[in-house]
Amino acid sequence: MAGNSFGKLFKLTTFGESHGKAIGGIIDGCPAGLSLDLEKIQDELNKRRPGQSAIVTQRKEPDTVEFLSGIFEGKTTGTPIGFVIQNADQKSKDYSHIKDTYRPSHADYTYDEKYGVRDYRGGGRSSARETASRVVGGAIAKQLVSEITFLTFTSSVGAIKMQKNYWEIDADLIEANPVRCPDPASAEKMEAYIREIRSQGDTIGGTVQCVIKNVPKGLGEPVFDKLHAELGKAMLSINAVKGFEFGSGFEGTKMKGSEHNDIFNPDGSTTTNLSGGIQGGISNGMDIYFNVAFKPVATLIQKQQTINSKGETVEMQGKGRHDPCVVPRAVPIVEAMAALVIADFMLQNRSSKIESNFLKNL
Amino acid sequence: MAGNSFGKLFKLTTFGESHGKAIGGIIDGCPAGLSLDLEKIQDELNKRRPGQSAIVTQRKEPDTVEFLSGIFEGKTTGTPIGFVIQNADQKSKDYSHIKDTYRPSHADYTYDEKYGVRDYRGGGRSSARETASRVVGGAIAKQLVSEITFLTFTSSVGAIKMQKNYWEIDADLIEANPVRCPDPASAEKMEAYIREIRSQGDTIGGTVQCVIKNVPKGLGEPVFDKLHAELGKAMLSINAVKGFEFGSGFEGTKMKGSEHNDIFNPDGSTTTNLSGGIQGGISNGMDIYFNVAFKPVATLIQKQQTINSKGETVEMQGKGRHDPCVVPRAVPIVEAMAALVIADFMLQNRSSKIESNFLKNL
Amino acid sequence: MAGNSFGKLFKLTTFGESHGKAIGGIIDGCPAGLSLDLEKIQDELNKRRPGQSAIVTQRKEPDTVEFLSGIFEGKTTGTPIGFVIQNADQKSKDYSHIKDTYRPSHADYTYDEKYGVRDYRGGGRSSARETASRVVGGAIAKQLVSEITFLTFTSSVGAIKMQKNYWEIDADLIEANPVRCPDPASAEKMEAYIREIRSQGDTIGGTVQCVIKNVPKGLGEPVFDKLHAELGKAMLSINAVKGFEFGSGFEGTKMKGSEHNDIFNPDGSTTTNLSGGIQGGISNGMDIYFNVAFKPVATLIQKQQTINSKGETVEMQGKGRHDPCVVPRAVPIVEAMAALVIADFMLQNRSSKIESNFLKNL
Amino acid sequence: MAGNSFGKLFKLTTFGESHGKAIGGIIDGCPAGLSLDLEKIQDELNKRRPGQSAIVTQRKEPDTVEFLSGIFEGKTTGTPIGFVIQNADQKSKDYSHIKDTYRPSHADYTYDEKYGVRDYRGGGRSSARETASRVVGGAIAKQLVSEITFLTFTSSVGAIKMQKNYWEIDADLIEANPVRCPDPASAEKMEAYIREIRSQGDTIGGTVQCVIKNVPKGLGEPVFDKLHAELGKAMLSINAVKGFEFGSGFEGTKMKGSEHNDIFNPDGSTTTNLSGGIQGGISNGMDIYFNVAFKPVATLIQKQQTINSKGETVEMQGKGRHDPCVVPRAVPIVEAMAALVIADFMLQNRSSKIESNFLKNL
Repeated sequence: MAGNSFGKLFKLTTFGESHGKAIGGIIDGCPAGLSLDLEKIQDELNKRRPGQSAIVTQRKEPDTVEFLSGIFEGKTTGTPIGFVIQNADQKSKDYSHIKDTYRPSHADYTYDEKYGVRDYRGGGRSSARETASRVVGGAIAKQLVSEITFLTFTSSVGAIKMQKNYWEIDADLIEANPVRCPDPASAEKMEAYIREIRSQGDTIGGTVQCVIKNVPKGLGEPVFDKLHAELGKAMLSINAVKGFEFGSGFEGTKMKGSEHNDIFNPDGSTTTNLSGGIQGGISNGMDIYFNVAFKPVATLIQKQQTINSKGETVEMQGKGRHDPCVVPRAVPIVEAMAALVIADFMLQNRSSKIESNFLKNL
Repeated sequence: MAGNSFGKLFKLTTFGESHGKAIGGIIDGCPAGLSLDLEKIQDELNKRRPGQSAIVTQRKEPDTVEFLSGIFEGKTTGTPIGFVIQNADQKSKDYSHIKDTYRPSHADYTYDEKYGVRDYRGGGRSSARETASRVVGGAIAKQLVSEITFLTFTSSVGAIKMQKNYWEIDADLIEANPVRCPDPASAEKMEAYIREIRSQGDTIGGTVQCVIKNVPKGLGEPVFDKLHAELGKAMLSINAVKGFEFGSGFEGTKMKGSEHNDIFNPDGSTTTNLSGGIQGGISNGMDIYFNVAFKPVATLIQKQQTINSKGETVEMQGKGRHDPCVVPRAVPIVEAMAALVIADFMLQNRSSKIESNFLKNL
Repeated sequence: MAGNSFGKLFKLTTFGESHGKAIGGIIDGCPAGLSLDLEKIQDELNKRRPGQSAIVTQRKEPDTVEFLSGIFEGKTTGTPIGFVIQNADQKSKDYSHIKDTYRPSHADYTYDEKYGVRDYRGGGRSSARETASRVVGGAIAKQLVSEITFLTFTSSVGAIKMQKNYWEIDADLIEANPVRCPDPASAEKMEAYIREIRSQGDTIGGTVQCVIKNVPKGLGEPVFDKLHAELGKAMLSINAVKGFEFGSGFEGTKMKGSEHNDIFNPDGSTTTNLSGGIQGGISNGMDIYFNVAFKPVATLIQKQQTINSKGETVEMQGKGRHDPCVVPRAVPIVEAMAALVIADFMLQNRSSKIESNFLKNL
Repeated sequence: MAGNSFGKLFKLTTFGESHGKAIGGIIDGCPAGLSLDLEKIQDELNKRRPGQSAIVTQRKEPDTVEFLSGIFEGKTTGTPIGFVIQNADQKSKDYSHIKDTYRPSHADYTYDEKYGVRDYRGGGRSSARETASRVVGGAIAKQLVSEITFLTFTSSVGAIKMQKNYWEIDADLIEANPVRCPDPASAEKMEAYIREIRSQGDTIGGTVQCVIKNVPKGLGEPVFDKLHAELGKAMLSINAVKGFEFGSGFEGTKMKGSEHNDIFNPDGSTTTNLSGGIQGGISNGMDIYFNVAFKPVATLIQKQQTINSKGETVEMQGKGRHDPCVVPRAVPIVEAMAALVIADFMLQNRSSKIESNFLKNL
C-alpha cells in the first residue's frame, strides 16, 4: 500500500521526483461531460510556483501542465486524465552534498532506513515539488464542484496572527499581498518578518486557514470516514504539516458544553458555528473552517551539525534555493487538498438525499 | 463508501447502534498463529465501560465481548475474527423525547439530512457506544505488535494542564486515578473540576496524549499515507474530537528552523524530538507522541432551546446518563485507534527492510 | 489483504467457520430507506440450506438469520447491517479423522501451508457453509435492485445438458424439481443420474447458468473493472468453480466475426446477443447471461489414498454428510453473487447517466 | 470507482486513448532495490506491437516506453514508477466515419450510453491500445518475481486446437512462429487459416493458454480473493475475452469425483493436476494453468448494416488497420496480466509463511 493515491471516487495518483524527468499524475473518476477551463488550472499552479515573489524560493520552474488523456474537445470523457509537468530547472549538483549526508529534520534518513536506496537530488520524492500534481488535481476538483467556494489564506506567520475572524474575510484581499493574508495590516508585518528571518539564513513556521462555503448538507460518512477526518488526513499529508483543527479546535477543549453548543435557528442553521460546519462527521450546511499548522522549513542557510550515512558527525549548510517560510506557497496546496476531499464526497453522496443540482454543470 | 471499515491489511469493520440488539465487528487480516489473551481484551473494554467510576456516565453495560470465529484452540487462524457485544441496559424510553427533536451540537440533524431515516434511540449509530468495537480491535492489534508500548492518558481537562512532559510519564500512574492523568497533583484538580462541572449539569472538554515507544524505523508511506496522516485520521474519527497535533504541533509554528530542527546523534537518534518520531511521514525510531482535542459533551442536564423536525422552536433537557467529561473514557479509545494504525503499518512494512522479528510472536 | 470482503459501494464482509459458534457478516453501503422483506431473505437461505431434498447433504441446519443492526422499523438506516447465523448441527467428531490428514482436492493442505494452523472441523473456513452469508447479502442486494430479474438454474449435470436456450426459460419451472433445472425432461435425467452417482459413493460436476434481465445500459467500468470481469471474479470465488464464460463464451472462439457480430436494431437493441448483454465491459441493455462450471465434490464415500501432515501415505474415506452434486444448492449462491455485483454497479453508476428510477424504491 | 487501477500492493493505473497524445501509467508499490532490465521491458512491448508480422494489423507504432520516475541509477526506489508511450502513427481520419455511427459488437454504443461523450478516434479508451501499458506493468512484475516462469501461447485458432498438453510445452518454440503456438504442426495450420480469413475481410477467435511454474505454496486468499478468481478477473478485463477456465475447467464438470481428485504424493505434490495448481483458492505448488477465450475481432473489412446515433440504419465497412485474429498479439497481454496477479499476491503473502527468498532479488 505505497499510498500514492488519494480519494475514492475522485482519485488522484501522483508520481515523480524533484529532479527526475517529470512529475505528474492520473485523475481517475472525474465524471464525463465537464467543460474544463485549462487556464484556471494553470493559474492555480502559478500560485504554487517557485519564484513568484521575493519571499519565496528563487528556483525557476515554468510548471506548465500538459494533459495527455481524458479530455476531448474541451470536455472530460469519464476516462482517466493523465498529465505531466516537466522538471526544467534542476540544479542537481546543488544537492551532491546530501548524497551521503542526512539533513536534520528532513526525510533523508527515514527514506534510507525504509528503502535502502534514495534519489537524493532535491530531496527526490520527499520534496514538496510533488504537491504541484496535487494542485492540478485540486483545480479540476474545484471546477467539478463549482458552486462551492474555497477561501484559503495565511492566518499566522510565527507568532504574528491575522486579526480577523473567518467570517470577515474579503476573498479579493488574499492575493493582494505576497503572504496571502487577507488582513493587510497583519500581512505587512508578516512579510517584514519573513524578510528578516531570511536575512538570518533562518526559517519560520505558520498556519493556513481554509473556509469552505455553500457545502450541501449530508457530506461525510458517520464513523471512520468522517468529513473532518478525511480533511485532516488530507492536510496532514502535506509536507511540513504538524497539526489540524476544525471549528473550535484546541481552544474548544477549554470550554463548557453550555458555551460550546451551537443553538439551532428554525431553518436548521445555527446561531454560532463552533462545530465548524460538521456534526457527527457530516456537513450541516454551515461554513466549514479549519486551521493547518506548518513547521519552519528544515533547510537553513546556516551551518548545522549532522551525520552522514556512516554515522560520522559532519557539518553542513543548505545550498539550493529554499523558502524562508512555506506558508504563502502552501495556501494553494491546502486549497487543492480541500477541494479533492469535497469533490470525492460529493460524488460519494450522489447516492444520498443530496440535491444533484450541486453537480449540475455535468 | 459507507466508511465503516478502518485499516488496509489489518482491517476492522464495525456495526451496531446504541440501542439495537448488539454491536460488534469483524477483524480481517490478523495473521495466523497469534496466541490471544482474551482477558486482556476484556480488560481494555472495561477501561472504556460506562459506570466504572463516579465521574463517568452511570449507564450499566457489562460489555462482554463474544468471539464467533477466527480463533481456534487459543490461536488466530488467519481467517476473519467476528465478534459481538450484546446491548444490555438499553433505556430507550429515555430517548423518546429526541425522536423528533434535534439536540444541539449532536448528529441528529445531520443524520436526518443525510439519510432521511434515523434510529434515534440513544443516538443510534452516532453514539460513542460504537467505539467499544474499536477497543476490541485495538486490543488485538496491541497483542500483535506486543513489543511496541502505548502510553495514553489525559493531558488536560478544561484549562487544567498536566505538568509533565511526555518523556517523564510513569505508566503505572495512569490508572491510579479515575481521570487517567499520570500527574497526581493535576489529576486531583481535574477530578474536582469535573465533579463541579457535573453538579452544574454542564460538561467540559480536554485533551488526550498518546506516546508510542519502540516503533521500528520505516513505518509510514511517504506521500498521502504518511504515518501521522493516518494517525490523525484515526483520532479525528473518534466522537467529539476537534483537533490533532504531533511533535511540536501548533506551538511549532511559532518557532524558527534553527530552534526546531532535531540534531542527529551518531546512532541516528536525535538530541531533541520536535519531529515527534516521524520525518517525511516515516517513523525514525524516536518516540511518537501526539495530542487529541475533545470538545465538551453536547448533552447537558440543563434546559436548552432547539428545534424539532418541523423547524419549530422547542425546549429540551438531557435525560439519560451522560459523561460530564468524555476524556477519561476516551483514553482507551485513543490507544485502540493508535494500535490499529501501527499494526496496519507493521503488516504493510513487512515488505520493507524492517526486521520481521518485531512480529516474532507469530 | 485477507479478502473476506466483496463489493465497493455495496460491500459484504463475511466471517465464520463451518463448526464455529456462528457465521455471519456485515453489509456496508446499503442505502437508507429501503423497506426490507425479511421473509424473502430467509426464503433464499432455505434454497441453499442443507437437507432440503433427497439429492443433497442431509446435514440439518435451520440457517435462521438474525439481524443485529442497520434496520429500524423495517427500513434500512444507511448504517451497516450486521447479521449472524448460528451453527446448530455441528458433528465435529465426524471430522477428527482429517485433523492430521489431507483430503485429496480439498483445501486442507493449502491452508496448512499458508497459515500453519487450521480449524479442521468441517473444513473450517474453506467449507461452503460460508456461502450462507453471501446468500443473505445477495438477497438484500436483490431487493435493492428489485426491477432487475435474476433467473438462475442448473444447465448441466455431468454430460447431461439442458435442452433449452437462455431466452426460453420459464422462471416458474426452476423450483419445480430438486435439481433446479427449468427443462423438466432434462431435470428428470439429471436427478436420476445424481441418485446413481450417490449410490456409488461418488460425486459429479455440472454447470449453472444465470440470466439477468432488465439491466440498465451503462453498468460496468471500461478497463479493469469490466462488468463481466467482476461477474467472473464473483463466480470464481464460489467453492468448486473451475470456469466462467458469458455470451458466446468458449464456443465463440470458433466463430468468424461475420457470424459473431450482433447487428443493431434502430432502438439500440441487437438482433442476436452473442455479446451476452455487455460490450466493452459495459451493459448494453440486452439480457446478460453466463455459465459457471462446477467440479465434482471432492469428498467421496469411497476409500482413497492420501497423506497425513507427516507425509505418510494413509487411506481415508469421507464421513460426514455430503452433496453428491453441488450444483442444485449452488444455484442460489450464483444468484446471490450476481446480485451483489449488479447492486454494487448500480450504486456506482448513480454518478452516470443511468436513470435513477431504477433505484426508486429508496 | 472508475476502475483504471489493477492490483492491491503492486498496483498499476493506466491512462490514455488510442489517438490521444500518449498513453501510459503509474506502477505504485514496486519494492525498492529491484535492478530493472529496461531492454526486457521493451522486448515485451515489441511482442504486443502492431506491425510485427504479416498476420497482424499493419499500424506502425514504435511503442517506446519512457520512464519518468521511480528508478534511480538503474534500481527502483520504492516510489511510483510513472511512464508514457507516445502515440505516433495516429490516422484519426480513418475513424471519422464512426464519429456518429456505432460499430456492431464494439463499445461505441455503450460508451455513448454511459458517458454521453466519446473520443471516437481509433476507439478511444476502448481500444486495445491501452493494453500496452499493462505489458509495461507486467514486464516489471515478471522481473520482481523472477524465479517464477510464465509460458503463454496460442492454444487454438477457430476450431484448430494445439495438439500438446500443457506439460509438454517447449518454451523456445513459442516465438518460433508468428502465431505463437509451440506446436509447429498446429501453428502452420493456424497461420494458413488466419491468412485465409483475412483474405475474406473476416476475423476469427481463438484461445490463449498460460502455464505458471515454480509458484510458491500459499498464494491466494481463501474466500473472495481466491488466486484463480483474481486471475479470472485479470483475464476477463482484457479486450475481446469471453471466458476463463483453469485446471480441468469446463471439461471437469463432466467428470466424477473419483476421476477428478488429485492424489497426493508423500512430498505434497499430486500425481495428477486437474486442480490446476490451486486448491481452495490457494496455490499448492503444482503448475498453475488456465485458458482464455477470445472472440473474433469485431471490425470487419466487409460491409455491415448498423445504426447511427440518431437510430437510423446505415451501412459501414471497417477502415483502418485491424487484426484478423487477436490471439497472437494477446499472448503477451495475458502473460502481463498473469504476472501482475502473481506479483501482487507475492507481496501480499510476504506476511504469511512463504519463504521470502522467492523475492530474494530485492
